[in-house]
Amino acid sequence: MTMHAVPASDRADLAAFLGRERARVDAALDALVPGLAARAPAPLAEPILYALGTPGKRLRPVLCVTAWSVVRPGPVPDAVYHLACALEIIHTYSLVHDDLPCMDDDDLRRGRPTVHVAFSPRAALLAGAALIPAAVRVLDDAARELGAGAALRGRLAAELCDAAGANGMVGGQQLDLEGEAGTVVDGAGLERIHRAKTGALLAASLRIGALAAGADDGVLRGLTVYGRELGLAFQIVDDVLDVTQADAVLGKTAGKDASTGKATYPSIFGLERARQMARERVDRAVDALAGARIPSPELRALAAYVLERDR
Amino acid sequence: MTMHAVPASDRADLAAFLGRERARVDAALDALVPGLAARAPAPLAEPILYALGTPGKRLRPVLCVTAWSVVRPGPVPDAVYHLACALEIIHTYSLVHDDLPCMDDDDLRRGRPTVHVAFSPRAALLAGAALIPAAVRVLDDAARELGAGAALRGRLAAELCDAAGANGMVGGQQLDLEGEAGTVVDGAGLERIHRAKTGALLAASLRIGALAAGADDGVLRGLTVYGRELGLAFQIVDDVLDVTQADAVLGKTAGKDASTGKATYPSIFGLERARQMARERVDRAVDALAGARIPSPELRALAAYVLERDR
Repeated sequence: MTMHAVPASDRADLAAFLGRERARVDAALDALVPGLAARAPAPLAEPILYALGTPGKRLRPVLCVTAWSVVRPGPVPDAVYHLACALEIIHTYSLVHDDLPCMDDDDLRRGRPTVHVAFSPRAALLAGAALIPAAVRVLDDAARELGAGAALRGRLAAELCDAAGANGMVGGQQLDLEGEAGTVVDGAGLERIHRAKTGALLAASLRIGALAAGADDGVLRGLTVYGRELGLAFQIVDDVLDVTQADAVLGKTAGKDASTGKATYPSIFGLERARQMARERVDRAVDALAGARIPSPELRALAAYVLERDR
Repeated sequence: MTMHAVPASDRADLAAFLGRERARVDAALDALVPGLAARAPAPLAEPILYALGTPGKRLRPVLCVTAWSVVRPGPVPDAVYHLACALEIIHTYSLVHDDLPCMDDDDLRRGRPTVHVAFSPRAALLAGAALIPAAVRVLDDAARELGAGAALRGRLAAELCDAAGANGMVGGQQLDLEGEAGTVVDGAGLERIHRAKTGALLAASLRIGALAAGADDGVLRGLTVYGRELGLAFQIVDDVLDVTQADAVLGKTAGKDASTGKATYPSIFGLERARQMARERVDRAVDALAGARIPSPELRALAAYVLERDR
């Protein structure tokens, strides 16, 4: 996919930035994860470790850390990466449950068998559910490490819980499944689905990093709009990739949307218009940064990366 | 079931106490629940409201409030009932998921069709998962109402998350399902299952109420042992009732354990020995109260109630 091209030098910088940040996120996950299932029975600990150990883009934690850096430039404390891990843990739970037979029924995720295939649907259901309180624990422990007071700790937990709950991600998944079940979904409906399903957690990732760093309302608003628009762009690109890419590149089952008759951006608007809409969303995301005077080349580059990614 | 008989006058007091406390818990739930699904899409809000609206014993919230009263006798603020609701919300999530076809596959719960029967397995999966962050929100909001500082708020959230997670309730459910799947479970194994599956959340209910009230370590330890023993007694009685009661009384499918070949207290020890074990557990629970100098007639009566209940 080539659109909203990033200059070659910026692209090299972005690749280095993403590589470095992912490595720190992965190191933080490696440090935290064993503790999450330490006293759990082995048949539950194993799918939890498997799910969290699957390599990923770590987009949500990277957004969280980058938002922190917008407010507090300079070296980032390890505790910020711990905070960021809470977002990856919630994201991982949503993938494990979404892949279940009674949901999207996917066998392949990030190039590996999904949890319910590698273990069982029961194990996937339980491991996914166990990740939710685990994420809250990780978030609050990190907030304590950062010396957050009662009000901020409550605010951070509320951001995570709201984004992960009925009014956020889970609500979006419910709307998405209705679409698959034959309810007619138009462009506005699709936007509503993805705002909840993807946008809420992306925006929360940024907001949690920024709030922990003590961001003012203007920066918070700018990052929120950026996150929501980025979420929509991300989802449109996901729909496009489902049409244009093969399983091997995608690391999950391609062509799934068409086979289930699901409403997607390409199915409603066509491939070219969908690509253009993703570009427009990224432009709005970048405009929101400029409007809030957030001079983050990393966030601008991340927005471009969402367009250019091939899986 | 008649054992460890409660004198008629105490029984009348207990009935009045339980009725009064349940009414306040139900009023608190009625006040909180609409907000939990306010911005959720209707097909997700409906199963959430249905699940939380099913009448129940409200044992966990009543234990939470009673533990508060042990530490702070006198009128109980509404916020303590809000705190207590978090435990009922977590308990409700666990029932919704446990009833799913890929789990215990139950059609009847508290005398009504289970959520996956009344709606769909997808709706039950999503509604259940949405209740977890909702419970955390309710708990933390209540802790804020009670003026809890950062350390206490963190501690309360940790208690809830640990009891609800891989090392607590979810871990216990995993062990329980393994038993059903043919793994040989002996008495010690059964105790391990129920300590995690039921005991962890009952103990957390008491600990959360007591911690919020500022309990010292001695009281906390006493209540913890009481909760764990009560949890075991509760589970043994559950197993006994599954053998001896009809669906109509139980409000759920009776005789399920035998038909699935599941290891239970009656199947391992026989009905009479199981009844005796429940009595022994209740005695230990009451002894733990005495050992910690907790003069709560309500907690003693609740322990006896667990033995005498018929559903």
